Amino acid sequence: MKVGFLGPRGTFSEDAASLYAQHIHLLDCEYVPFSNFVGVGEAVLDQEIELGILPIENSLEGQVGVANDILIEEVGIKASGEVILPIHVHLIGKEGIEPETCNRIYSHPQPLGQCAKFLHTHFPTAHHIISSSTSQAVADMLDSSEPAFALANASAAQLHNAIIVRRDVQDSSKNHTRFLVIGKADYEPTGHDKTSICYTLPANQAGSLYDSLRPFKQARINLTRIESRPTKNELGTYIFLLDLEGHRLDPIVAEALQELQSLSTFFRVIGSYPQWR
Amino acid sequence: MKVGFLGPRGTFSEDAASLYAQHIHLLDCEYVPFSNFVGVGEAVLDQEIELGILPIENSLEGQVGVANDILIEEVGIKASGEVILPIHVHLIGKEGIEPETCNRIYSHPQPLGQCAKFLHTHFPTAHHIISSSTSQAVADMLDSSEPAFALANASAAQLHNAIIVRRDVQDSSKNHTRFLVIGKADYEPTGHDKTSICYTLPANQAGSLYDSLRPFKQARINLTRIESRPTKNELGTYIFLLDLEGHRLDPIVAEALQELQSLSTFFRVIGSYPQWR
Repeated sequence: MKVGFLGPRGTFSEDAASLYAQHIHLLDCEYVPFSNFVGVGEAVLDQEIELGILPIENSLEGQVGVANDILIEEVGIKASGEVILPIHVHLIGKEGIEPETCNRIYSHPQPLGQCAKFLHTHFPTAHHIISSSTSQAVADMLDSSEPAFALANASAAQLHNAIIVRRDVQDSSKNHTRFLVIGKADYEPTGHDKTSICYTLPANQAGSLYDSLRPFKQARINLTRIESRPTKNELGTYIFLLDLEGHRLDPIVAEALQELQSLSTFFRVIGSYPQWR
Repeated sequence: MKVGFLGPRGTFSEDAASLYAQHIHLLDCEYVPFSNFVGVGEAVLDQEIELGILPIENSLEGQVGVANDILIEEVGIKASGEVILPIHVHLIGKEGIEPETCNRIYSHPQPLGQCAKFLHTHFPTAHHIISSSTSQAVADMLDSSEPAFALANASAAQLHNAIIVRRDVQDSSKNHTRFLVIGKADYEPTGHDKTSICYTLPANQAGSLYDSLRPFKQARINLTRIESRPTKNELGTYIFLLDLEGHRLDPIVAEALQELQSLSTFFRVIGSYPQWR
C-alpha cells in the first residue's frame, strides 16, 4: 500500500501518514513524498498511490487553503479518513551553538506563527528565514554559516541527525492539525462517521446561506465545521465546506444532503469516513 | 495623516493605502511601513498612526488568517473603510537575463499561488524561492548570483529600478484583494454601508449556526461574507466573521445584531464603513 504526503521526508505530514497507517493497521506501507499538494492529488487520481494525506486545518492557524481547494476541484478524489495529529514544535540546533549568539531561526511559516511569543521572548532580534517545510528548515539550519536554530518536529531532527535543544516551544499546548486521507473511494458506514461536503449558492440572494443549513437543523445533524473558500471567479463569492456527523448512506443524512443539493448551484459529497478517536 | 501598512515600501499593501487615500481625498498622507500586521494594529491602538491597512481576503487565495485574527482580538480597533485592489502580478528581471536560463523565481507565497499555471508552463524546472514580500522578492532577485526573475507588482519594480519583462502573468484576470482600513473609530452612516462583526456560539449545539443567521434572514439583510477562524482553544471550535450590508446604526441592522448577540458566547462589532465602489 502506497501512501503519499507533502515531502520531503520527516515532515508533520509524514508523521500524520504514519499515525494513520498504525491506527487502521495498514501493513507494508510505503510512504511516498510529493513536492506539493497537487502532486498528491494527481497521484491518487492516476492510481500511482492508494492513499494521500492532506492537512486541512490547524487549531491555531486555521484552514490550509490549497489543500481544501483540491477537495473541491478534484471530483475523482474521495475523503476516506481523518487523522488528528498533536503538533509538537521543538527548537533544533547543532553542536556548539549558544542560544545567545543565534541570529537566525529557520522554519515553515506555520510553526513560526505557532511559536511567535516564544521567539519574541527568547530571540527578539533573530531573523526568521522561511523554508519550504520543517524538514527542509532543519537541513537549512545545518547548512547555515551563521549561528542558527530551526523550529521543527522530532522526525525532522532525527532524519538530519540534529539536536533537540528545547522541546515543545509552541505558544499553546492546544496545537493540533487535522488531516484528511484521500483515495479513489470513501469508507463504508461504521456507526461513528463524518461526512465532508462542499457547495455554492445562488449569488446575491439574501438568506440563502441560512436556508442551506435548514436541512441539518431539521434533522438534528451536528455540523462539526464550516469554512468558506473563494470561487476564484469574483471577489465575494464563496464555496462552503461543511463537515457533519453521520454517513452519507444514513437515510437521515442522505435526505438532508438531497435537500441541500436542490438549493445549490454546485454540490459535491467529498466523502464519508470514520471519526478520529 | 499617517497611514500604516505591511512593509517594506513598494508592496501591494502600500498600493492599497495609496488608492484609499486618493479615494477619500486624504491630503498630506504619510505612509508608514511596519514589519508585520500586529505592528500595524498596535500602532493604531497607540495612536502612532491614524489609519492602518490590512489585507483580509483575495479572490483566488482566500482569507488572510493573521489579519482577520487582529480584527477579532484587538477590541480597541475599528474597521472604518474598505479598499478593493485589482492585483496585477508582473514578471520582473534585470538587464541581460534570458528566460531560457532562469532557474530561480522569487516571490511571496500569494503571487506564487496566483501564477502557478504560468510558472508550470514557462518555468517548469525553476526553483521557487520565498521572500517576505513582493518588494523584498525584487530586491532578492537583483542580488541573486543565479539567473532569476521575481513575481511582483509594478511599484516594487519601480522602487528597485528593475525591469518588467512580462505584464499580468497571474492565472486569472479576476484577481482582487480586499483590504480593511482600521482606526480608533468606525465611519458615520452614508446610506451605502457595510458592517463587519465576529462571534462565537455555544459548543456542540446542533443548529446553533443556523439559528445565528435567522436575524439577518428575517430582516432581509444581505450577508456579503462569512468566514471562520479557529478559537485557538480546541480544534473544531470556530469564531465566525460576517460582513453584512447596512450600518450598525440603521435600526433594522441594530435590532438584528442585538438578537445575534443574545445567542453568542462572544460578540463584537468590528465596525461600519462605506462600501467600496
